[in-house]
Amino acid sequence: MLNFNFYSPTNFVFGKDTESQVGELVKKEKAKKVLIHYGSGSIKRSGLFDRVIKSLEEVNIEYVELGGVVPNPRDTLVYEGIELCREEKVDFILAVGGGSTIDSAKAIAAGVKYKGDFWDFYEKTATITKAVKIGVILTIPAAGSEGSNATVITKTDGMLKRVTYGDSIRPVFSIINPELTYTLPSYQTAAGIVDMMAHIFERYLTKTNDVLLTDRLCEATLVSIIEAAKVVMEEPTNYEARATICWAGTIAHNGSLGVGRQEDWASHRLEHELSALYDVTHGAGLAVIFPSYMRYTVNVDVQRYRRLAVKVFGIKDKPKKPLKVALAGIQALENFFKSINMPTSFEDIGAKKEDIDMLVKKLRINCGDVVGFFKGITMEDAKNIYELACK
Amino acid sequence: MLNFNFYSPTNFVFGKDTESQVGELVKKEKAKKVLIHYGSGSIKRSGLFDRVIKSLEEVNIEYVELGGVVPNPRDTLVYEGIELCREEKVDFILAVGGGSTIDSAKAIAAGVKYKGDFWDFYEKTATITKAVKIGVILTIPAAGSEGSNATVITKTDGMLKRVTYGDSIRPVFSIINPELTYTLPSYQTAAGIVDMMAHIFERYLTKTNDVLLTDRLCEATLVSIIEAAKVVMEEPTNYEARATICWAGTIAHNGSLGVGRQEDWASHRLEHELSALYDVTHGAGLAVIFPSYMRYTVNVDVQRYRRLAVKVFGIKDKPKKPLKVALAGIQALENFFKSINMPTSFEDIGAKKEDIDMLVKKLRINCGDVVGFFKGITMEDAKNIYELACK
Repeated sequence: MLNFNFYSPTNFVFGKDTESQVGELVKKEKAKKVLIHYGSGSIKRSGLFDRVIKSLEEVNIEYVELGGVVPNPRDTLVYEGIELCREEKVDFILAVGGGSTIDSAKAIAAGVKYKGDFWDFYEKTATITKAVKIGVILTIPAAGSEGSNATVITKTDGMLKRVTYGDSIRPVFSIINPELTYTLPSYQTAAGIVDMMAHIFERYLTKTNDVLLTDRLCEATLVSIIEAAKVVMEEPTNYEARATICWAGTIAHNGSLGVGRQEDWASHRLEHELSALYDVTHGAGLAVIFPSYMRYTVNVDVQRYRRLAVKVFGIKDKPKKPLKVALAGIQALENFFKSINMPTSFEDIGAKKEDIDMLVKKLRINCGDVVGFFKGITMEDAKNIYELACK
Repeated sequence: MLNFNFYSPTNFVFGKDTESQVGELVKKEKAKKVLIHYGSGSIKRSGLFDRVIKSLEEVNIEYVELGGVVPNPRDTLVYEGIELCREEKVDFILAVGGGSTIDSAKAIAAGVKYKGDFWDFYEKTATITKAVKIGVILTIPAAGSEGSNATVITKTDGMLKRVTYGDSIRPVFSIINPELTYTLPSYQTAAGIVDMMAHIFERYLTKTNDVLLTDRLCEATLVSIIEAAKVVMEEPTNYEARATICWAGTIAHNGSLGVGRQEDWASHRLEHELSALYDVTHGAGLAVIFPSYMRYTVNVDVQRYRRLAVKVFGIKDKPKKPLKVALAGIQALENFFKSINMPTSFEDIGAKKEDIDMLVKKLRINCGDVVGFFKGITMEDAKNIYELACK
């Protein structure tokens, strides 16, 4: 087990009607003026926006609003948000939405307190050391951004998708009401499920030995996600299954399932090029990448893949045929993705084989010559994995 | 799944040599003068105290010290600590030890900022709203106090053992170096293992339905503890097994394994009377109480006990004979306690059957007429459970 820091200071407020606590939670942070940041406006149609405002008004907190966050959130809106916060003297940012909205809010929060161009953080020429406080009302369980220190933004000029990190951009609170996810389109529900599973795989696929406790926590969460996924796809208003998905999505990415081990994150990098080029939903892109990535890396640690197959996908163990068991597990994962109507090939998302050289070129620009730690994906490996996904 | 808050803001700094970071971590909190709080003085003999001082001196932080914390820590030392902190203008308390030392530090930290008698918090006539900041260097994995909001203190006059809670007494950081636990006597190692398992059982024994994700996380942790326990009892300097025990002890009590469900805590209350009367180690007292408590409550939810038996103790499942499977699981737990040389009966700890009426009387004074939520233990039930433990 490697040395680690586990730091997840966010106050997670989970359950029915919890969004009504937002005013009190913001007040506790001594905020005076809030930027309400959101996406397409579905929160206005659903009545959530009105409930949020009511709760803020009850404790006399002023607000301004900025909607329009898109999936794979853009730098352009971040610049707009930074300017708005400065003009309006905003001292708290409330993200109401999913990962894209939260990531955009994090970028704004750090940008407001920084004299230079906020994109410096994503270029890694500057480090986030302070930020406006952030709170979250989660409406899409997927990215885990409600409990993470990460933010991913896409630079419109060149469609560069980049990640950065900082403890000061961790939300001070995250309100998670599973009922708010009842009306999610099933495609978004499914893409969210793939995303959270991917966050666990990125941690599970490690070469660090002696992390059995963490392995088991990962497996427990994966089994629960798959079980609940089957329920929510049939019955979108099943509270318990929605609640399981919501909480699993949070713990999949607050660090608790990665302690003591080197994480991989190669698949995420490979996917970022897909969603940047084709503007595909991140989770859907991950469903395309993962089965191919896994088949390509199965021999890096066949016993680890065998364990995954047996513990998570219920494949019958055959200790003398570990590769067979391992591959059956990967096939079961792909079948599961298909069963929730997720794409699993380039064709399914309209990606083209002839774009692969460009994808690899951009991957190298964004990530360097070798990506991740489980295998350590070279650019040749990346090309092979993209090609495998063309099947 | 019930609504819940999950809030665990402590920065856990885990791994080899991490105690050398203590100076920097205290400095980050802008502290000027630290109270180093500890127990018997073994930290001086081991050289840990010197390393702590060196790290503090390197960043020019002053300190005073207060040793002498005993198991089942006493109010008398807390009063002394409060006075010392006020006289010396201490602005940070560093607990170096196990649960008793941390709990004592928490009581001092809250007491310093309170005008009345700190015992009011434990009488529940006052609430902890502020406290001096606390940091921890853990030397005994057991109580989970390094990540909890709880503190248990024993009032010497009457040997009343009481618990209280407060978010402001959560440690801002907890340094956990498994190597520091190599020299623990095997009795203390074993008692710690029972304590952390008990913290999980108190959360696992719930009547709340639909908490399968949390159930599975509990089971994953229990299996890992049992596996690692067998190794450390044979091989006390096995780093990986010690690390598993250390981290399991922390997550067993930072709230993550109790989300979304009503917790029980009846067994802890029953045990507190044993350790208060006989001054037995808390974990050892729990090893006496738990098998009897479980047998007594098996019919409250025989399927839950059956699941525990199958998932954690590897008992062969017989769906048509759930009680048989459940009882076999409880027997396996008792056998495990015996295998690590823990007591499992009144006789083993020198407790007397004729004291039971007094134990029940004190239990009623401390906890009222009904204790816990799984069964809801009446005073008659308590008497029966204590009698069962006399076997």
